[in-house]
Amino acid sequence: EDLKKQQSVTTSDPYSSDPVRHPALRVNSLKPFNAEPPPEILSDSYITPSAIFFKRNHLPVPQVDPGSYRLYIEGLPGGVLTLSLEDLKTKFPKHTVTATLQCAGNRRSEMNKVKQVKGLNWGIAAISNATWSGAKLRDVLLAAGYGPDVAKWARHVQFEGLDKDVSGTTYGASIPLNKAVSEEGDVLLAYEMNGEDLPADHGFPVRVVVPGTVGARNVKWLGKVTVSAEESGSHWQQNDYKGFSPGTDWDTVDFKSAPAIQELPIQSAITVPADGGVVERSSGEVTVKGYAWSGGGREVVRVDVSLDGGKTWQVAQLKDGENEAPPPPGRAWAWKLWEVQAPLPPEAQELEIICKAVDDSYNMQPDSVPPIWNLRGVLSNAWHRVKVKITEDESGE
Amino acid sequence: EDLKKQQSVTTSDPYSSDPVRHPALRVNSLKPFNAEPPPEILSDSYITPSAIFFKRNHLPVPQVDPGSYRLYIEGLPGGVLTLSLEDLKTKFPKHTVTATLQCAGNRRSEMNKVKQVKGLNWGIAAISNATWSGAKLRDVLLAAGYGPDVAKWARHVQFEGLDKDVSGTTYGASIPLNKAVSEEGDVLLAYEMNGEDLPADHGFPVRVVVPGTVGARNVKWLGKVTVSAEESGSHWQQNDYKGFSPGTDWDTVDFKSAPAIQELPIQSAITVPADGGVVERSSGEVTVKGYAWSGGGREVVRVDVSLDGGKTWQVAQLKDGENEAPPPPGRAWAWKLWEVQAPLPPEAQELEIICKAVDDSYNMQPDSVPPIWNLRGVLSNAWHRVKVKITEDESGE
Ligand SMILES: [Mo]
Ligand SMILES: [Mo]
Repeated sequence: EDLKKQQSVTTSDPYSSDPVRHPALRVNSLKPFNAEPPPEILSDSYITPSAIFFKRNHLPVPQVDPGSYRLYIEGLPGGVLTLSLEDLKTKFPKHTVTATLQCAGNRRSEMNKVKQVKGLNWGIAAISNATWSGAKLRDVLLAAGYGPDVAKWARHVQFEGLDKDVSGTTYGASIPLNKAVSEEGDVLLAYEMNGEDLPADHGFPVRVVVPGTVGARNVKWLGKVTVSAEESGSHWQQNDYKGFSPGTDWDTVDFKSAPAIQELPIQSAITVPADGGVVERSSGEVTVKGYAWSGGGREVVRVDVSLDGGKTWQVAQLKDGENEAPPPPGRAWAWKLWEVQAPLPPEAQELEIICKAVDDSYNMQPDSVPPIWNLRGVLSNAWHRVKVKITEDESGE
Repeated sequence: EDLKKQQSVTTSDPYSSDPVRHPALRVNSLKPFNAEPPPEILSDSYITPSAIFFKRNHLPVPQVDPGSYRLYIEGLPGGVLTLSLEDLKTKFPKHTVTATLQCAGNRRSEMNKVKQVKGLNWGIAAISNATWSGAKLRDVLLAAGYGPDVAKWARHVQFEGLDKDVSGTTYGASIPLNKAVSEEGDVLLAYEMNGEDLPADHGFPVRVVVPGTVGARNVKWLGKVTVSAEESGSHWQQNDYKGFSPGTDWDTVDFKSAPAIQELPIQSAITVPADGGVVERSSGEVTVKGYAWSGGGREVVRVDVSLDGGKTWQVAQLKDGENEAPPPPGRAWAWKLWEVQAPLPPEAQELEIICKAVDDSYNMQPDSVPPIWNLRGVLSNAWHRVKVKITEDESGE
């Protein structure tokens, strides 16, 4: 009987109700599900199709019935505000924001090559861009009683997901109050992604979208919002998703000494050609493509590309989204795809192609990985480098 | 007679009424006056004494009579608002902000060593920190008729100085409207520096202080404020103070292609020991001091220091201002001084000491100068490096 019970527990896999995923995704972890699209597909579209948008789950995907779903807004003087999905859709204006999300661990694999780090071995595609629609968090907080009196003591807005581990601990995170309540912060309680209901992997029925802020604070399957004097006490806010000096190791690390990652730094990467790829001499030129993005609403203003390992640089052409108006100042939440077409250097057998981006605060990417290496492998934003071979093809006539 | 006239013009030097300056300043240009303090003095005090605060004048210092001084606020529906110095002091609440100003050309000399650039050859001390008091620009704009209707079309706030060249052209610059009118932007029409009337070199009787923004927008000897749909048309806004790719030269540069510098990127430098200095072996250790600052209200959260040219790093101790409350989030306008005391590596004859800082968006400084070199030599924020010799002193017993 004990054996039977054990088997029944074993077979009740909490991941068994996870959704079916797109076969093109490169899987880093199945349970929880973590996967990224192939880079060359990523840069094909300004808006990433939801099916190939990178997936970063910390826990099993919860199954939420949209009819009985309730969102609780807590910590405000009026008491708890309870909202159904219908309430969220009908009682508040619907806002739409195009925003790029990036995992703190994007490009971690490059840090792993320097020295082993702890975390999923992400390539360069744990970043994607989508259109999100929902109620503004600001509007919901105002409806729940937020006002100048609250601003006196409150400092953070905490989010709790409906996803939980076997012990019942839910995913949680928080953002600074001023981001949450600012007219220009554009924080959404989103119920649509790319014009459709949120997919199960992206937080159905409601997630937070915090434009310009690390993926980890964009809590999915949102169950509770709490206005507080304190940051979220969750593991992911307190003891994870923080940056440290390359000299800090697991014996000496003090997680209290570093701030939780919120806004992300300037980032860019080359999606085409792939590292280790080949270019044909006869083509005479090479086309280099990639993405660039910066956190905090800072707009990418330039991408420099080198074909000779960083000795000389040319300026890439930045492509805006089609039919997208230029973002208001300080609210450039979406990435820019970019492209360069350059003649092949006549003598070269191999190219080291590098990209580096600049944002409108003129922040630049660091040159190399070792000096920004950190034990969790987060914030990996050094210049991106790919090596390609030039092949002398004999196709001819 | 013609000769006489010519001589009289020649001797009427527009700089003849410039104030007397502190003899410790290192002069980069006398007319206009541009000078910086010795680095080791700079890091002696969190608040830089006004006399040694770096001076960056584009034109002769105008002599302004405080009694007849008038400030004009233009471009708003109610017409021109004219304010006397007394009006500014008595009709608006007095606000005090501690803010670091940095010249766009700070550390330009390091770029000059890579390849010649155009501009004053600043060392590492074209940056200083002071306490500024005055009316909030926001309050003055509201009094002058700024409101939601203006926000629909206005995008910039232009400033015009009373300093002019021989042809009568005045210094001018602008900042984005949202910085100017935000409650949290802390932009001041300042009439005090470090608790006293503004010194002549720093804009007496009124200057703009735009915390987190490049020095060039902090217009001194302020004569006019204009709310506009357009940026300032001045040379300094349009055809100067912009960043470019290292591959861009004076033949190919298109000033329209780059945004005017506003928020500055993460910066740090070593003030002690000086480059080329010596450390005595017998002391057994070396004390390294410096400053770190980031634009846009981003707080410096860490400074890494290396004694071995970047192979290994230790974390410096950050020193806050005495009696200063921690800044509200997103409003860290002041620098942090920092210090490290480290044992001398036993074998070394020479040390290459490096510092690099990190702000709360986890932006990092680039490793090296050549990839960020630009024809105007601005935004020079690569890791700062100094070399010192270790001397075997024979003092003994
Ligand atoms: Mo993440
Ligand atoms: Mo400057």
